[in-house]
Amino acid sequence: MKNKNARSAAPFAYEGLDRVIHERARLSVLTSLLTHPGGVSFVELKQLCALTDGNLARHLQVLEEDKMIHISKEEDRGRAQTTVRITASGRKRYMEYLTILEQVVRDAASVVESSEGDDISRKLSPLNA
Amino acid sequence: MKNKNARSAAPFAYEGLDRVIHERARLSVLTSLLTHPGGVSFVELKQLCALTDGNLARHLQVLEEDKMIHISKEEDRGRAQTTVRITASGRKRYMEYLTILEQVVRDAASVVESSEGDDISRKLSPLNA
Repeated sequence: MKNKNARSAAPFAYEGLDRVIHERARLSVLTSLLTHPGGVSFVELKQLCALTDGNLARHLQVLEEDKMIHISKEEDRGRAQTTVRITASGRKRYMEYLTILEQVVRDAASVVESSEGDDISRKLSPLNA
Repeated sequence: MKNKNARSAAPFAYEGLDRVIHERARLSVLTSLLTHPGGVSFVELKQLCALTDGNLARHLQVLEEDKMIHISKEEDRGRAQTTVRITASGRKRYMEYLTILEQVVRDAASVVESSEGDDISRKLSPLNA
């Protein structure tokens, strides 16, 4: 309801773009985890998201403090392994974020579609608002 | 080409998520300007994006320094008015950014679709990766 009102008053405010999720590295991590609900190891996550150890650790801390992910130490053939999973509330928040992201894409795509073709910069100019 | 390689090595890195554009307030401003190619006044832009004077001014400065927007002072019935427009290169960069944003939405949506229905949190759990 709040979003609906915000949308009509300030149609481009995108207030649901949760800053914790929107940050690029965290968006990478969360999308990886969403698509791997069984969990991803720290090493694997680093590769999937092209992040350094330090960077990934820092962002995981933010997400864990915000209860969006769960980090556990597990044994894998005698070696300790860090496994990261998205939590149910993390998944819910990501989904809410996703609806706003889709709104951005729709808003922008509506302009692209109405211009038809590649040279949109030239075609858009006469479409004064 | 670079993106294509990055995608296969680190499929969730989303390296094309240009930080200048991705910041929420600037994403609001740029999407507003994209959909109003004739230009938007400072006052109107503030309302469309639900930003304060100071916040909007700060982000416009970043975007202008990056040559993504053009700011001009115009006369409107004897009153000076600031009009903001997206530049051709700004539009081009936004479009490149948009393709990555669509990729994020597709990646996440593929999980949502494969789970069918509302209670995805419960349905996702058994889908171990």
